[in-house]
Amino acid sequence: MRIVPAKEFRLQRDVDYGTKEQNEAVRQIIQDVRSDGDAAVLKYTALHDRTEISAAELKVTEAEMNAAYDVVEPSFITAIRAAAHNIRKFHEKQKRSSWMDFEPDGSLLGQIIRPLDRVGVYVPGGKAAYPSSVLMNVIPAQVAGVREIVMVTPPATSGGEGVDPYILVAAAEAGVNEMYRVGGAQAIAALAYGTESIQKVDKICGPGNIYVALAKREVFGAVDIDSIAGPSEIVVLADETAKADYVAADLLSQAEHDEMASAILVTTSQQLAEEVQREVEEQLSKLPREDIARASVEAHGAIIVVSSLLEGIEVVNQLAPEHLEVMVAEPMAYVSYIRHAGAIFLGPYSSEPVGDYFAGPNHIIPTNGTARYASPVDVDDFTKKSSLIYYSKEALLRNGEAIMELARHEGLEGHARAIEIRLQQERN
Amino acid sequence: MRIVPAKEFRLQRDVDYGTKEQNEAVRQIIQDVRSDGDAAVLKYTALHDRTEISAAELKVTEAEMNAAYDVVEPSFITAIRAAAHNIRKFHEKQKRSSWMDFEPDGSLLGQIIRPLDRVGVYVPGGKAAYPSSVLMNVIPAQVAGVREIVMVTPPATSGGEGVDPYILVAAAEAGVNEMYRVGGAQAIAALAYGTESIQKVDKICGPGNIYVALAKREVFGAVDIDSIAGPSEIVVLADETAKADYVAADLLSQAEHDEMASAILVTTSQQLAEEVQREVEEQLSKLPREDIARASVEAHGAIIVVSSLLEGIEVVNQLAPEHLEVMVAEPMAYVSYIRHAGAIFLGPYSSEPVGDYFAGPNHIIPTNGTARYASPVDVDDFTKKSSLIYYSKEALLRNGEAIMELARHEGLEGHARAIEIRLQQERN
Repeated sequence: MRIVPAKEFRLQRDVDYGTKEQNEAVRQIIQDVRSDGDAAVLKYTALHDRTEISAAELKVTEAEMNAAYDVVEPSFITAIRAAAHNIRKFHEKQKRSSWMDFEPDGSLLGQIIRPLDRVGVYVPGGKAAYPSSVLMNVIPAQVAGVREIVMVTPPATSGGEGVDPYILVAAAEAGVNEMYRVGGAQAIAALAYGTESIQKVDKICGPGNIYVALAKREVFGAVDIDSIAGPSEIVVLADETAKADYVAADLLSQAEHDEMASAILVTTSQQLAEEVQREVEEQLSKLPREDIARASVEAHGAIIVVSSLLEGIEVVNQLAPEHLEVMVAEPMAYVSYIRHAGAIFLGPYSSEPVGDYFAGPNHIIPTNGTARYASPVDVDDFTKKSSLIYYSKEALLRNGEAIMELARHEGLEGHARAIEIRLQQERN
Repeated sequence: MRIVPAKEFRLQRDVDYGTKEQNEAVRQIIQDVRSDGDAAVLKYTALHDRTEISAAELKVTEAEMNAAYDVVEPSFITAIRAAAHNIRKFHEKQKRSSWMDFEPDGSLLGQIIRPLDRVGVYVPGGKAAYPSSVLMNVIPAQVAGVREIVMVTPPATSGGEGVDPYILVAAAEAGVNEMYRVGGAQAIAALAYGTESIQKVDKICGPGNIYVALAKREVFGAVDIDSIAGPSEIVVLADETAKADYVAADLLSQAEHDEMASAILVTTSQQLAEEVQREVEEQLSKLPREDIARASVEAHGAIIVVSSLLEGIEVVNQLAPEHLEVMVAEPMAYVSYIRHAGAIFLGPYSSEPVGDYFAGPNHIIPTNGTARYASPVDVDDFTKKSSLIYYSKEALLRNGEAIMELARHEGLEGHARAIEIRLQQERN
């Protein structure tokens, strides 16, 4: 892991918008699903997932859901229930109420906050089928009050049609109502436009491969989508009080995700920098995913030595990391200065996996510097607002002239007349 | 205006994603601005806005801002100040606080809510330069606490380089800090990627023509964007107590926006339906923008007679209109049943222009059925959240095993070891 000066460090920030061929393939799939419905969904499932199923087999049955509980270890069920409890508790605090404000002139202004009607959650197949991601996507929707939460996931490519039982258990615990064995761009198209078997949703969320990401980008507007996740990032901000082995382990827990992941240490201590460098090498050599983590650390990892914690925080704000760990003597004293970070972990015991799996806050967090403007997934993502305006006669009579002035200035005489016709009749 | 049965009515819902040529032109402009900065911005300004200016002239000076106040009528200034006051007051109520929650085991979980650093607001030139839209985009950002609010608007195509003085006054009243005379896709590219003269922003909002809309879509990910507005819509839900001339005037105030706009009456009263039909014809013939309003009414207008208000509300929920007026005897009794509408206007005096210009709620509202999942522009759009996790030693010792179980199930041994290394050392 390189030790580099802050000024020389730049993080690779290019978003993958896919090749021209990938984009064209995705557009074709979406077009086919829009025009041919289930038939197109089944055709692409046979083609890309090598699974021949009928429309009737798309839906995962309740019997399958129940059977999953017999396969999965009880300790997993206990752990996932505890995690789900914490996630639900944290997200409950994000719930907001509609409000109304009564004016002295008899008018009423307000904002109504409601859940979305129907949400689709994509869950990748194979090794990327993470039960924790199911919880993190589904629970905020459920807490928001979404009544219909639909999951789609590719049929198991291991020959069978079964969905991973751990995913089924996580989905049931989180509150999924409906589930279909369909993946890829065809799943996104079905959720966005509807088919004979799968009813259209209002929003699609959840991670996926490049085809899923491009398809979500393509259907945005017809439905809402969540943000498209980039590679994962961690920045650890540490002073001389941090333990090098903890820091190294946390950096590697991020690096093992993906060769494109970034793990960066920003520290005021040259000694810690050198110790972490040694520890990373030491721990790397024993890691099952050593190859991935090593590639990540070599290409996107860095140790940056700064002269003060405030200088370190400036580096952090430039990076706007997905995850930030603050392992310094007095972590709370620095929170105000951290302007851009998706999730902030304070102190020696707040290792990032605590947040990935268990503590309660969402683990779907803006990547790729988008913490500058974006937020972790939360209950707001599954609600929408309506404005409420009840204008009294008194308010209209008093403000009508100003409204007409503004409308006429914009050349919208029809707007002015909608007010004028009322002023003429109501003044009498 | 046609009277049609509810079952036969379908609203045209296609989003304009531009032609292949328009998309390619936009991509080329963005690429050029990314590689050549100001030079490309000035080249495209000369080409598309027929205005030759230097980089030094891009920025609108304070002297120009001040001079605008001498040109604009005092009654306009009074009206825009009153509107700005109401808009600010309404949006102040949307502000939210960061929160923290202290656990009995010494842990702390929280959510930090902060404003974005820097926001760009696009304001179209020519006849589409609406001072009211400047207020509606800028004030929520200002209330959110955004420190740098940058406006871009095309140089006046009427020969000069001056920006419309009414826009300048609205911008100053709303709280714009910086302004540049640049429009089109080149303005969006400059805001998204930065040039020598224009610093990159975190979010771009504001309406524009198809090139602006496509450019926003294209830069999404590098920066945040607001939603891309479709044609405007109004649905009036009325019973026999509604006044036909008010209803007709309100429908036409929407129809005059755009030939693609939709104005729809849903009513339980056949008599009102027929009276409104006559009134629309009568009022249309006297409207300055008769041609536009007539084209809108003929292509996208409709009167739908329903057998009950609840049936009418089902039609409304299907349409998910941008604006909904409820002109019935007891409007408040029906609000709970309205699931999808961007802004709801209640009673005879809440004509839509009241909300367009003056009452306080935002007039930038989801169009094209997107009120199913989207919301009017508000303070939340200019803030972002960070999760805060401080885990205590006690919490880690108690929950460490469950966290490791979940991590190992997902094949992420590095995650498990980041916990394990702590358990080993802290248990002693």
